[in-house]
Amino acid sequence: MNPKVITVARDVLAATRADAEDFRELRSRAGTLIVNVLSSPGSGKTSLLQATARHWQGRFRMAVLVGDLATDRDAQRLAPWVDVVQMTTGGACHLEIPLVRKAFDRLPLADWDFLFIENVGNLVCPASHDVGEHVRVVLLSTTEGDDKPAKYPKMFRTSQALVVSKLDLLPYVPFSVEAVTEDARLIQPELAVLPVCALDGRGVAEWCGYLEQTRRDRLLQRVETPT
Amino acid sequence: MNPKVITVARDVLAATRADAEDFRELRSRAGTLIVNVLSSPGSGKTSLLQATARHWQGRFRMAVLVGDLATDRDAQRLAPWVDVVQMTTGGACHLEIPLVRKAFDRLPLADWDFLFIENVGNLVCPASHDVGEHVRVVLLSTTEGDDKPAKYPKMFRTSQALVVSKLDLLPYVPFSVEAVTEDARLIQPELAVLPVCALDGRGVAEWCGYLEQTRRDRLLQRVETPT
Repeated sequence: MNPKVITVARDVLAATRADAEDFRELRSRAGTLIVNVLSSPGSGKTSLLQATARHWQGRFRMAVLVGDLATDRDAQRLAPWVDVVQMTTGGACHLEIPLVRKAFDRLPLADWDFLFIENVGNLVCPASHDVGEHVRVVLLSTTEGDDKPAKYPKMFRTSQALVVSKLDLLPYVPFSVEAVTEDARLIQPELAVLPVCALDGRGVAEWCGYLEQTRRDRLLQRVETPT
Repeated sequence: MNPKVITVARDVLAATRADAEDFRELRSRAGTLIVNVLSSPGSGKTSLLQATARHWQGRFRMAVLVGDLATDRDAQRLAPWVDVVQMTTGGACHLEIPLVRKAFDRLPLADWDFLFIENVGNLVCPASHDVGEHVRVVLLSTTEGDDKPAKYPKMFRTSQALVVSKLDLLPYVPFSVEAVTEDARLIQPELAVLPVCALDGRGVAEWCGYLEQTRRDRLLQRVETPT
């Protein structure tokens, strides 16, 4: 029997990059900062976005595109707070730009202030895929151990911010925020480090302030600079 | 410019399956139970294997092949307790059988009682790859949330045992062992569920007993049955 043959052209990668760049540029013009949120399963991505929405309380227009292999549980958790579209990948281990654009088109507005893309829970594969974001944020919970930056270097090298989540569990686990900051900055010296507890609200104002400042720096600077 | 073209034959998959089957059969004849250990990053795979080695204290010949994207930190943690070989994947998100066989060839013995394969920390991709194991075990720590079976169904559907780790943190987190057991068994009715705390030793005897029984059932039954 002849083997079935799949042919893959490298051009696909260039087309994907151009697609992500096009989406980023379109959203930039609309004043929308796109934030790609990545972590292991269960690090608290959804809880962080709930806390973010509560903190802003309508002061910014915020939407979430949430990715999972299966179920719409995360979208259901977010729906009381923000406009949200669930993307189920049917088993695929990361999000790609075509699915993100399709999901975006289902949102009721186009001119958001912040668009969050909650990626599939996976500290490996999503690091290799540009989904049109301006900012890539990796979450690491205190219960996962502070040895993760060296063990998952690409995720930390390609991120601009590290959110250390589940601060409330710090007394019960062997984890040092200082050690993880030092290790992560060996890999990515410019990394912003933001310790947060989504449950009791510690650090949420600083996290939201970081996003607001980043949006001003990246998108609004030229517009708002007095002439 | 012409695009570069990569050609992939489906036959590769059949060859990989045969390779995994060959490795399993060889190790079966030597009396070695192969255990593929999978979880998110930081769920406690290495700590569980340390606790397993301490519990057995030389009563069984035990070796570990440990997979990571980068670093040999896990191998260093295990080396005081057991024979161990570190496999670094150079960024790849899961282990495959050729690397496992190469690592196995570096061990000092061939006739282990138990060979553990500590996979890359990833709750998605390793579920799709047979590395020659007899038993697939998924760890889920109490801090990751009890909604994971429905969200990562393939990992739970293809496993024979679920170890619920970090029992010591149960008082501080919203997690129900009963709920996760029920959800996981909707996906895989035969799943053995083993709650464990590697730090204080709770459940470690039951986990080791499960492995000893599985080894008897899978490998030794015919030999040891009285005639």
